[in-house]
Amino acid sequence: MLNKDNIFLALLLFIPISIAGHFLHWGSLTVFITSALAIVPLAAWMGTATEEIAVVLGPSLGGLLNATFGNATELIIGLVALNAGLIDVVKASITGSIIGNLLLVMGLSMFLGGLRYKEQEFQPVVARTNASAMNLAVIAMLLPTAVNYTSTGVAEDAIQHLSDWVAIVLILVYGLTLLFSMKTHSYLYDAGLAELEPEELAEANLAPDEPAQHEVNVWLWSGVLLACTLMVAIESELLVDTLEEATSRLGLTALFTGVILVPIIGNAAEHATAVTVAMKNKMDLSVSVAVGSSLQIALFVAPFLVLAGWVLHKPMDLNFNPFELVAVTVAVLIANSISSDGQSNWLEGTLLLAAYTVLGIAFYFHPVIEGIG
Amino acid sequence: MLNKDNIFLALLLFIPISIAGHFLHWGSLTVFITSALAIVPLAAWMGTATEEIAVVLGPSLGGLLNATFGNATELIIGLVALNAGLIDVVKASITGSIIGNLLLVMGLSMFLGGLRYKEQEFQPVVARTNASAMNLAVIAMLLPTAVNYTSTGVAEDAIQHLSDWVAIVLILVYGLTLLFSMKTHSYLYDAGLAELEPEELAEANLAPDEPAQHEVNVWLWSGVLLACTLMVAIESELLVDTLEEATSRLGLTALFTGVILVPIIGNAAEHATAVTVAMKNKMDLSVSVAVGSSLQIALFVAPFLVLAGWVLHKPMDLNFNPFELVAVTVAVLIANSISSDGQSNWLEGTLLLAAYTVLGIAFYFHPVIEGIG
Amino acid sequence: MLNKDNIFLALLLFIPISIAGHFLHWGSLTVFITSALAIVPLAAWMGTATEEIAVVLGPSLGGLLNATFGNATELIIGLVALNAGLIDVVKASITGSIIGNLLLVMGLSMFLGGLRYKEQEFQPVVARTNASAMNLAVIAMLLPTAVNYTSTGVAEDAIQHLSDWVAIVLILVYGLTLLFSMKTHSYLYDAGLAELEPEELAEANLAPDEPAQHEVNVWLWSGVLLACTLMVAIESELLVDTLEEATSRLGLTALFTGVILVPIIGNAAEHATAVTVAMKNKMDLSVSVAVGSSLQIALFVAPFLVLAGWVLHKPMDLNFNPFELVAVTVAVLIANSISSDGQSNWLEGTLLLAAYTVLGIAFYFHPVIEGIG
Repeated sequence: MLNKDNIFLALLLFIPISIAGHFLHWGSLTVFITSALAIVPLAAWMGTATEEIAVVLGPSLGGLLNATFGNATELIIGLVALNAGLIDVVKASITGSIIGNLLLVMGLSMFLGGLRYKEQEFQPVVARTNASAMNLAVIAMLLPTAVNYTSTGVAEDAIQHLSDWVAIVLILVYGLTLLFSMKTHSYLYDAGLAELEPEELAEANLAPDEPAQHEVNVWLWSGVLLACTLMVAIESELLVDTLEEATSRLGLTALFTGVILVPIIGNAAEHATAVTVAMKNKMDLSVSVAVGSSLQIALFVAPFLVLAGWVLHKPMDLNFNPFELVAVTVAVLIANSISSDGQSNWLEGTLLLAAYTVLGIAFYFHPVIEGIG
Repeated sequence: MLNKDNIFLALLLFIPISIAGHFLHWGSLTVFITSALAIVPLAAWMGTATEEIAVVLGPSLGGLLNATFGNATELIIGLVALNAGLIDVVKASITGSIIGNLLLVMGLSMFLGGLRYKEQEFQPVVARTNASAMNLAVIAMLLPTAVNYTSTGVAEDAIQHLSDWVAIVLILVYGLTLLFSMKTHSYLYDAGLAELEPEELAEANLAPDEPAQHEVNVWLWSGVLLACTLMVAIESELLVDTLEEATSRLGLTALFTGVILVPIIGNAAEHATAVTVAMKNKMDLSVSVAVGSSLQIALFVAPFLVLAGWVLHKPMDLNFNPFELVAVTVAVLIANSISSDGQSNWLEGTLLLAAYTVLGIAFYFHPVIEGIG
Repeated sequence: MLNKDNIFLALLLFIPISIAGHFLHWGSLTVFITSALAIVPLAAWMGTATEEIAVVLGPSLGGLLNATFGNATELIIGLVALNAGLIDVVKASITGSIIGNLLLVMGLSMFLGGLRYKEQEFQPVVARTNASAMNLAVIAMLLPTAVNYTSTGVAEDAIQHLSDWVAIVLILVYGLTLLFSMKTHSYLYDAGLAELEPEELAEANLAPDEPAQHEVNVWLWSGVLLACTLMVAIESELLVDTLEEATSRLGLTALFTGVILVPIIGNAAEHATAVTVAMKNKMDLSVSVAVGSSLQIALFVAPFLVLAGWVLHKPMDLNFNPFELVAVTVAVLIANSISSDGQSNWLEGTLLLAAYTVLGIAFYFHPVIEGIG
């Protein structure tokens, strides 16, 4: 039968195919496509594993876990690209992950959830705190570029130092957001779960009377997570190596591929999780996955890669190209505007999807930028 | 007596005067001013007719109807200017209609309504959904310009294709907002009316016990609407033909005239309706007219004109001049910031009017831009 | 004992030291540092005096009074710098005061208050009205620069005229915000106080049964205010005279000193007041001081200095350097995003402080701009 699990099983075949393609020199387009397809089920299984573990841990820790292992894909792709010196691919991937999570993942969740439920609710205090944290991340990404553009003859060095210090501040803030959500104000994040009725809890496999079975699952799924993480690294290497050559054969710019295509692959896990739980009306978890994932990219993955570039002697800074900045800024603007009241409906989902579509069209028509294509 | 109706009757005299001026070559300044004055009562009567019909249709459909026939003026002026190849006049008129509705019309409504009522309320969910839709429209207007400015050597063609695709997305979104407000979530839009007390309904001519008389009115006022629409087309032709020459005689730039003066004429209907109902404390209808009108300009009139330019082989795109973009962006920013809580007072109206004033001053001092003056 | 009052008494010693330094030519770095240190206790005592008087006047008038006499320092420094022709120092000081109040003062208040109280509340309607007024101020600051950048060959004159008219609009709006907060809608501003329990009022020296003693204090503290105001003028002269030479010896740019260091000195009063009352959970007063102070800088001090420049024949306009504009815009964005729901917690304070930190880092690395260093 052609259900989701069978499709994913079939896609696993692309792991050996992509590796064979690499060694047998089947051409970069083949290796690019097969390694991309191989990452999809790996990321999806990481998502499934994470959701299973999240059930035991509760929506707060579960949401964090979802975001962490969803973003492991981005982190691995970023490190591989950074190590290959493809700084623009790293930045495009960061940009694309943020707008993909905020617009595509959250948009699809609100749209599909909204088709089934007229109005869906989630914790407004959490949504607004996340919105403010995303604003901080945008500010941090904006400043190095703004310094660069509003001055003449600023040294490359100064932008690098500025980026390093800003990265350290962002990682500290990220640590504090975890402290906030898991210790001092965890009750805000648990509220969504607490509101569920007993029968809903049971339906969502959240019934508190079967902890033993879940403990088994935790260990089982943790193993799956680890195995998938390793395979993703390998496949990322193939993906990044072939990205430039393959995309130029497809008639696409590397910018479009980096911002739109790669993150769709990398975000498959968040996508699956967020949409599934949105359709079960668990919007707290759904929004937590989408926004939490963007936050982690902006406050942890991006600054981590800046500092990794410092260690690896690669000139990675936060000086994004201006159109990427425009894209992230407007994505955060409209996502905050839609999420900060703690309510959603299908039209709000549509607006996010439309914003993603027009950004995608703009990236498609944006001419090749030096150094990335 | 010098009341509103008599003034409008007197202004109707300018219809034959402006036409005579055209054929007798009285000079472009005369024709410009008289055709502008002739449009005012036509647009105002369209407003009156619309309000009468809206009473029967309810505030949701009524608000839409108001916005549609108020914006018929802009659509007609836009088509006439597009056909004459005056692309910058079209863009200036779109810019001016959006900021005029959001700042001048909504500002005056909140200010005058707020002088009479200490606090006025309207549906916050509707206000926030509209705010998000306006954000999407700003993003769509921003992207073609951003692509143009963040790349070197982008083909004119690419901007045109980009604009065409974005226009199609916007028109689809516009259709979905109508589906939302009139079908799936119409109860949100009807809430404002439902809260009115019976005596208020009677005072506002909204009493449900006189449907027969109103049905007569619907047909009567529909005829008025049709006649006014035709006359506006004619007068728009005169207005657009004489705009450049007339405004340079007045010592104004065509940019100022296009952004500030023309939309005041075109928005007379929304103006009259929104302010009148605000002073009757029907803020749901008032805000619906002002914001709905801006939304229709941004999500329907502007993309419609882009596609019309494609059909007419005129190079109409969404690549606005950067200062127009700044104006629209800040207008949407402050209008959203003021409207999204569903409450208003006279100070908030003042802030919108002040924003309009400083924008007007800035457009007055903005030097002539090539191609528009 | 090393408590706050003793430190301030000790700092008073720097008044004669700085004056002696000036006459005995001890070098500009010495005079700069000692005059800066001398301003701290003066501004702090103005704060204490203001808080004492504010107790009698209530939180609304009291908040205004706090902001007025806190900003007297900025106004005096601004006038002295304007008179010396140091226009860029004036603009840097305005920029720095706005971001310092919104991010550093409000951030520290929310952070330290939030460590003691899990959630703190303040009037959301007031917060949102202030947010909208700050948006207007940003728009007004943005437009002259935007006109300048989006046109070629705009006359210096046009920017000056534009700034003068915008300044007049802002001062009118400022007057109307006072009318709103003190007359027509004062009940919104008094709400915070009204919610306090009798024992809290007593603890906060706000008990209504000791008016007589407070009347004495009003006169006593008014005298202190006057004396401090005079001394600040004198010390500002010394500070401004030595700013450029001293900061270049410290290895800092004049931009960094003007935006970050000077406002910390000038804002000491707001700082002390806002943090103290936040830790007593009087968030209405705390936010009113921080945001009110920013508003007064943007809507009164800045336009007042523009008009003063007109009288003094100094070319002061609102054409800020683009990076200052970016800083003010993002500061207002994140401050509005955090304050507009009328709630705060320690993480929101941290986000504001982090935004201030990254802005400070960016100003530190921003290369020297012509005319200011």
